[in-house]
Amino acid sequence: MTVKISHSPEVQQFFKEASGFQNDQGNTRMKTVTHRILSDAARIIEDLKITQDEFWKAVDYINRLGGRNEAGLLVAGLGLEHFLDLLEDAKDAEVGLTGGTPRTIEGPLYVAGAPIVEGEARMDDGSEDGVSTVMFLHGQVTGPDGKPLAGATVDLWHANTQGNYSYFDKSQTDYNLRRRIITDAEGRYRARSIVPSGYGCSPDGPTQEMLNQLGRHGQRPAHIHFFISAPGHRHLTTQINLSGDKYLWDDFAYATRDGLIGDIHFNDDPEAAHARGVEGRFAEVEFDFQLQQAPAPTAEQRSRRPRALQEA
Amino acid sequence: MTVKISHSPEVQQFFKEASGFQNDQGNTRMKTVTHRILSDAARIIEDLKITQDEFWKAVDYINRLGGRNEAGLLVAGLGLEHFLDLLEDAKDAEVGLTGGTPRTIEGPLYVAGAPIVEGEARMDDGSEDGVSTVMFLHGQVTGPDGKPLAGATVDLWHANTQGNYSYFDKSQTDYNLRRRIITDAEGRYRARSIVPSGYGCSPDGPTQEMLNQLGRHGQRPAHIHFFISAPGHRHLTTQINLSGDKYLWDDFAYATRDGLIGDIHFNDDPEAAHARGVEGRFAEVEFDFQLQQAPAPTAEQRSRRPRALQEA
Repeated sequence: MTVKISHSPEVQQFFKEASGFQNDQGNTRMKTVTHRILSDAARIIEDLKITQDEFWKAVDYINRLGGRNEAGLLVAGLGLEHFLDLLEDAKDAEVGLTGGTPRTIEGPLYVAGAPIVEGEARMDDGSEDGVSTVMFLHGQVTGPDGKPLAGATVDLWHANTQGNYSYFDKSQTDYNLRRRIITDAEGRYRARSIVPSGYGCSPDGPTQEMLNQLGRHGQRPAHIHFFISAPGHRHLTTQINLSGDKYLWDDFAYATRDGLIGDIHFNDDPEAAHARGVEGRFAEVEFDFQLQQAPAPTAEQRSRRPRALQEA
Repeated sequence: MTVKISHSPEVQQFFKEASGFQNDQGNTRMKTVTHRILSDAARIIEDLKITQDEFWKAVDYINRLGGRNEAGLLVAGLGLEHFLDLLEDAKDAEVGLTGGTPRTIEGPLYVAGAPIVEGEARMDDGSEDGVSTVMFLHGQVTGPDGKPLAGATVDLWHANTQGNYSYFDKSQTDYNLRRRIITDAEGRYRARSIVPSGYGCSPDGPTQEMLNQLGRHGQRPAHIHFFISAPGHRHLTTQINLSGDKYLWDDFAYATRDGLIGDIHFNDDPEAAHARGVEGRFAEVEFDFQLQQAPAPTAEQRSRRPRALQEA
């Protein structure tokens, strides 16, 4: 027996009242969205016969999820952030806005305000010397016509050898492995950094708790995040996932996409190392980005997603 | 133009994968629920053309909601907790399980483990003497046949004159205004406490932020929460809302129901006060509870909603 009441006039009226439709204050858009969420939630409860225990466990989960600041991690892990990319791709295709480097998810670990460097940046603070492998990362930013974009901003961030990100990992120095590089006259950016390790969800966090329930792991391949922007061009949020990683096509956040694999080449030649000013094994990654023309000035900006801003 | 992709085989397949249907680990029930939530969320995003900015504002809201431990308050304010009561009522009606005192929402402010007292309890710690009005609260607990239930547990909690609850309001003593009273041979419970004030959401909290968007206030009438239980009888979660309160039928949490109005009588007679051992104005509330027979042993227990447990 499945008892349902959400279709009844009384309950429909109740949800309209709860959503604020009976008053003329507040925000109409928010009322519409809230009413839809309420109505859908009620139908889920009825259709799946959600028990009291299940409902309150879910409420408690949201408290614990927010208490750990992991809502952004969960929507990545459940694929909703990737879904938003697929939907944006479909909208673009509908209006013929194609070409250039693919977008992929931002993830929840960006920190605004990283140091700005012209052309070439040293990204790591040297604290993992001896443990890390030096990575030379470089490439060119071009426009839709393939011409180099001088003065473009390559805002990039990645994890350390433990898969952790500065700011969120308080053991790292401010803005470690986070830089904004301004491309040179040939549209080139160059970074000396360290090879990142893949990120994994906190084993004791609510996102991993949910993934465990779904029989899924919470690991990502080694990767590097990018915001690429240039005047007149469409903002690009993307990342490159490094070749050879066991999670390359098994990313819990579904960020890996064709066209976004960064081929990493390790070099054990002492002479090559010497020529680059380093010792021992090092790695090289070359990756070019092609931006689209901005269809409107607002398209030059990244979304207004709330982001961390480090205290200077 | 509304671009939709969630019906496509690729996206359907993707949500199945994200929900863990491709593996044989984890919890099948959780996979089913997650898949439904994901699918509905995607449809909401498409149907209402949720923007990137809106989506990420919502994710940030969940982090802030959980960070303040207000998810339980929000589901009360949005009427989902009342909806669960309506649904339980409908299920009961379907199987002819009627009669007795109506249920209503628990709210998020119960704390387990309050002191147990036989027959009569003093609930307040005296810290609001001079500010508060003494309230004598009493009544009888009966079974479905109207016969008194001796040894029933009346677990009750209410706010102070500021509308705040002990444990959550750290300025109050442990278990202030929280008691478990065991009914006497005539099924009676008696409490001396203080007249509570209505509760209001924190003005700077995420629940009130949402209510503001919906053009709604976040106030409750003065009320007293009850868990009533007795062996062989169905657990009752309810509350009485006090007569005369301006928010009695304008409760942001929709807990007020017919049959649950507590008539409060104020008495300014010095002799009557003297006879009760108090000075000045006092109040009296009488409220009886009638329990249903438990249809199954599990019905004797309250839900396993995660609740606060004070450190002893």
